[in-house]
Amino acid sequence: MKYPPVHYHDYLGLNPLLNAQHPKSTEYGKPAHDELLFIIVHQTYELWFKQILFELDSVLSTFQKPTVAESEMGIASARLERIVSILKLIIGQVDVLETMTPLDFLDFRDMLYPASGFQSYQWRLIETKLGLRIGDRLAYNQSPFYKSLSESQQGEMLNIMNQPSLHDSVEKWLERTPFLQGENFNFWDSYKEAVNKMFQDDITTVKNNPRLPDEEKAKTVAGLEQTLKSFDALFDEEAFNKLRAEGQFRLSYKAMHAALLIQLHRDQPILQTPFRIIRALLDIDETMTTWRYRHALMAMRMLGQKIGTGGSSGHKYLADATAKHKIFGDFFNLTTFFIPRSQVPPLPKAIADRMSFHY
Amino acid sequence: MKYPPVHYHDYLGLNPLLNAQHPKSTEYGKPAHDELLFIIVHQTYELWFKQILFELDSVLSTFQKPTVAESEMGIASARLERIVSILKLIIGQVDVLETMTPLDFLDFRDMLYPASGFQSYQWRLIETKLGLRIGDRLAYNQSPFYKSLSESQQGEMLNIMNQPSLHDSVEKWLERTPFLQGENFNFWDSYKEAVNKMFQDDITTVKNNPRLPDEEKAKTVAGLEQTLKSFDALFDEEAFNKLRAEGQFRLSYKAMHAALLIQLHRDQPILQTPFRIIRALLDIDETMTTWRYRHALMAMRMLGQKIGTGGSSGHKYLADATAKHKIFGDFFNLTTFFIPRSQVPPLPKAIADRMSFHY
Amino acid sequence: MKYPPVHYHDYLGLNPLLNAQHPKSTEYGKPAHDELLFIIVHQTYELWFKQILFELDSVLSTFQKPTVAESEMGIASARLERIVSILKLIIGQVDVLETMTPLDFLDFRDMLYPASGFQSYQWRLIETKLGLRIGDRLAYNQSPFYKSLSESQQGEMLNIMNQPSLHDSVEKWLERTPFLQGENFNFWDSYKEAVNKMFQDDITTVKNNPRLPDEEKAKTVAGLEQTLKSFDALFDEEAFNKLRAEGQFRLSYKAMHAALLIQLHRDQPILQTPFRIIRALLDIDETMTTWRYRHALMAMRMLGQKIGTGGSSGHKYLADATAKHKIFGDFFNLTTFFIPRSQVPPLPKAIADRMSFHY
Amino acid sequence: MKYPPVHYHDYLGLNPLLNAQHPKSTEYGKPAHDELLFIIVHQTYELWFKQILFELDSVLSTFQKPTVAESEMGIASARLERIVSILKLIIGQVDVLETMTPLDFLDFRDMLYPASGFQSYQWRLIETKLGLRIGDRLAYNQSPFYKSLSESQQGEMLNIMNQPSLHDSVEKWLERTPFLQGENFNFWDSYKEAVNKMFQDDITTVKNNPRLPDEEKAKTVAGLEQTLKSFDALFDEEAFNKLRAEGQFRLSYKAMHAALLIQLHRDQPILQTPFRIIRALLDIDETMTTWRYRHALMAMRMLGQKIGTGGSSGHKYLADATAKHKIFGDFFNLTTFFIPRSQVPPLPKAIADRMSFHY
Repeated sequence: MKYPPVHYHDYLGLNPLLNAQHPKSTEYGKPAHDELLFIIVHQTYELWFKQILFELDSVLSTFQKPTVAESEMGIASARLERIVSILKLIIGQVDVLETMTPLDFLDFRDMLYPASGFQSYQWRLIETKLGLRIGDRLAYNQSPFYKSLSESQQGEMLNIMNQPSLHDSVEKWLERTPFLQGENFNFWDSYKEAVNKMFQDDITTVKNNPRLPDEEKAKTVAGLEQTLKSFDALFDEEAFNKLRAEGQFRLSYKAMHAALLIQLHRDQPILQTPFRIIRALLDIDETMTTWRYRHALMAMRMLGQKIGTGGSSGHKYLADATAKHKIFGDFFNLTTFFIPRSQVPPLPKAIADRMSFHY
Repeated sequence: MKYPPVHYHDYLGLNPLLNAQHPKSTEYGKPAHDELLFIIVHQTYELWFKQILFELDSVLSTFQKPTVAESEMGIASARLERIVSILKLIIGQVDVLETMTPLDFLDFRDMLYPASGFQSYQWRLIETKLGLRIGDRLAYNQSPFYKSLSESQQGEMLNIMNQPSLHDSVEKWLERTPFLQGENFNFWDSYKEAVNKMFQDDITTVKNNPRLPDEEKAKTVAGLEQTLKSFDALFDEEAFNKLRAEGQFRLSYKAMHAALLIQLHRDQPILQTPFRIIRALLDIDETMTTWRYRHALMAMRMLGQKIGTGGSSGHKYLADATAKHKIFGDFFNLTTFFIPRSQVPPLPKAIADRMSFHY
Repeated sequence: MKYPPVHYHDYLGLNPLLNAQHPKSTEYGKPAHDELLFIIVHQTYELWFKQILFELDSVLSTFQKPTVAESEMGIASARLERIVSILKLIIGQVDVLETMTPLDFLDFRDMLYPASGFQSYQWRLIETKLGLRIGDRLAYNQSPFYKSLSESQQGEMLNIMNQPSLHDSVEKWLERTPFLQGENFNFWDSYKEAVNKMFQDDITTVKNNPRLPDEEKAKTVAGLEQTLKSFDALFDEEAFNKLRAEGQFRLSYKAMHAALLIQLHRDQPILQTPFRIIRALLDIDETMTTWRYRHALMAMRMLGQKIGTGGSSGHKYLADATAKHKIFGDFFNLTTFFIPRSQVPPLPKAIADRMSFHY
Repeated sequence: MKYPPVHYHDYLGLNPLLNAQHPKSTEYGKPAHDELLFIIVHQTYELWFKQILFELDSVLSTFQKPTVAESEMGIASARLERIVSILKLIIGQVDVLETMTPLDFLDFRDMLYPASGFQSYQWRLIETKLGLRIGDRLAYNQSPFYKSLSESQQGEMLNIMNQPSLHDSVEKWLERTPFLQGENFNFWDSYKEAVNKMFQDDITTVKNNPRLPDEEKAKTVAGLEQTLKSFDALFDEEAFNKLRAEGQFRLSYKAMHAALLIQLHRDQPILQTPFRIIRALLDIDETMTTWRYRHALMAMRMLGQKIGTGGSSGHKYLADATAKHKIFGDFFNLTTFFIPRSQVPPLPKAIADRMSFHY
């Protein structure tokens, strides 16, 4: 009533959409049946990439504010989870693409040279906005990745590469986490104490174990001491910063601490949604990795040892990128420093109270 | 080398594709975040529908030939299976769509009136080309389904409704199946004999069972006799045609027999691919039904008891259509007439030989 | 060190587990290859049912406490979401089961009589503990559902049927929701006002629309007035209770209001996790329905018009149960009463403050 | 009637099955909620492994016959495809397992030491029966993989390692493929000729391209010549055997040729099912690889840089095994030697005739 009537066909722009498939093999008079599938799989990828970018931009703008309102956290977490849901869907598209056999692909493969998935501007944007830095990327054909984009895209990409990524903004947000210290409470000191106590107890248990031969005792104790030592990275800011400079960590010392607090005390009302946000970021990283990996396998199947349409040694590049292109790796690393919940020092009542509601 | 170089962006028509999203809520100055998702989910549906139609047309053209070459059967079966694979993928898209909550939908729902999925020309084409007849369809808002299409689409649709569907062509192909009789072999007579023998044996077993009280004996025997009677539909052409006229069967008597032969002797080399084709048609029917059903549930969740954007009582229509819009229902019904393999009369050696290779 | 060493094989109880498959067809000397698949599909179902029950019991015990601690809400929501995740997985098992053809099933089907999925005690427990009442169930073979269970299971089931279900406990929890009124705020009055205003505005717009013919005006206005009237159910406790007695609603008047508050103001920090809990309950209902539906389709495919192993007209029962066995139907119905967010009256600042954190 | 009545509960062995879960954390008086999930995920894996082994054994026994009957090929292909279907299902189980967080795992992780998925006898059997040789395996903790099995399992495993695997049997079956030569036809010679012609044509096209600078011409020609040279491996038995001895190929020269024939002429009626079998073997390899990969990612997430329960550097081992544990790698490699269908020499009519039916 209030708005002019709308028809499904126009609303969805089906004219431009369904006329945007132009198989090269038809153009060259050698129609290859499976080229349409190839086009449509990639077009749906790009439509989903557009959606992912849209969600990502909205989450970015939330996290780039000087203070992130608690009332926006639920939305941010839902939108990140939506990205995960889309990524899981498009992993399934590989199954559809694989109904095309390598021989069917050969019917039009030469006609696409040198087009390649590496030229997907939107995928590169997703990676960049999430926080994949140029130094994190595998070199591809000896040029920086953006060289395979069109000129105007290169300009935009360089611009975006200079803006804060989601990784950067999440780091700042983590650094602002309250509760890390105050009122006779220092999260970090109390955690350090608990870790030390736990390992010392373990060492004593081993030493006092009458069934254990001396040699094995020594070996086990040495192992425990070494693991304990690895925690130093977390307890000594200088040591941490040294490792960070070497590339072992990316998040700041303070942000790591905050992330650990959120993980260990995720049941406190105020940390429930932040915990979901960290989990969604892990899921995005893991799902993107899985997507790349499925593509690497598919490329190997499609091309054997041949070179990819873009001139890359296709599946090899993808398999390597798979391992390397991690963004929120520190959230994975953090697990190394978890201790069993029974050993985690309980929060002082005053702190726990402030993490909850009062109505 | 042989072909001019191609860039990913141009090849995939990303300019028209990624500029075909025009949220109404933006146009009206009340941007609703989730409208883009709504558009993109439906656009990817339509892209996949285009692909399904493309495969369907190719299979149709194979089956519409006077004789279907054995060397085209593998391709036909692979393309039908590809359709199944696409349908399974897009069922998964419902999960993504459901990340939009009913409240988010309300932000722009009024702006879309009266657009509705019922206006999808391509989905209607898929149904029609597969063989869904207008009489099989649930009436929708008291008008024939094609009235919700644009004028030019209505013309094309009426034209296509008058052409042989895949159901029609498969029926003709089945009717041409050799081996139904010949050389002292009549598949049908021998099957009828086996069915009769099996039921008579069962009846005798029951009658001779000393543990069974007389009342139960009578009841069980009556049940067996009734089931045996239901086979008459298959053994008596006149009876069959009567039931067919009443709408209980759609395939012809001869086509039903051929389908049964293929099912029971699917391991014979010449029947292996036909068996796969029938299975793929069953899968298509079942997967389309599941897709409709997931949408009915989603609509109910999104709208409650509200009316659909197209003015339909959304989920109710979908749920009913789900049950009614079956195309290859006879392949489901056929199962009723299967008997255990151990009771199926073996093929005479001369027939089995002709169903195999000789190199 | 601290615990005795464990071997994978013993830890997982693989001896009993992998020796619990006893195909009847082998026992009777007529081995049917696909019976093992049939057994294992159902065994994995039952293992997953055990896991679902375990999560359900833990959520039940949380919600049955006189007050549900905010710090337990995150866990409850995660466990309900885990149930959804398991249900989605086992829907996928239908794909595996369908690799068995109807003919393969016939090889051993008679040997299983009258075993049937209707005898699954654990599935019945899941339904009952969630809140499916005996009156909500489709009668099956003219006896109450629990009659197909073993005697000791019947006793336990009757006992559990008399205990509060998750539906009951969630209802109580909703009724305790604060913020529905207080301090010059009455959520309900202010919502009622907004609804009235919205409809009156719509009616005025229609009446003043010069392009609209009088007849259509009248019809549209009548439609709007009728919809507005349907809201009475929500605004008039007596009217609501009358409809509830007729079975149109199951939740209490107060619980419905609370659920609406949570939906409309889900971004308030204190409502973020409750919103997730309601969503998970909707997901559980929808996923269970989908699971039943896929089974109904599969049964139709497997049996045609034959009778199920348990003597039921298999797929018919399942299809009907699918529609009827809803538990949290009111959360679906609630959508009917949503109005666009732009029309929802904003919370008074004092209320909004109390829904947030103060650290 | 014919068989004694059966109850669902007994038929499925639910007593042993549902009593086979014994969480260590309960035994030690420190119940950890998520341990049951951990047990059940692994128990369902093992049930599915049993099913996979059952299908595998049946396919093995088909392929180990001196001649494989054409009438068994449809069954063999269906059973291999069922394995793929099961593998896809259990990849989805990782999603369920990941609803357990690393912190939840820590609650009972120490109690499981040194149990580990590496001790799964059935998974090792699947790999071994498919054809993974000990030399193909990544060393794990410096001992042969079977050392982590129990003693009696080690004996059986060594025995099975000495029997022909599916890879071996498929190789023998491929070597027996007719049509590779005969009646004035030599598949290989004619393919070699086609390859040579194709590359010479390409080289001529490049050389005659006036737009191409000389330097680029030289580079491109050199590339083409090098690729052509790589085909020598396929055309020169001695060269092939040398590469095979170096581990670049595993299949025999003759089997490789047969596999190529099947791929290139898959539409010939007699090759339709063999083509499906090769595709299913590729799918099995690819899906097992994906399963391992998802586990590697999950282990990294669960453990960070910690050591796996079995004392392995968990995710690192899995990620490496992922890449290395390929069985039918030659079917992937074969793609390297495909040429576009338009260049493939057509089969002589006499040969094509013998590949078809004559009824």
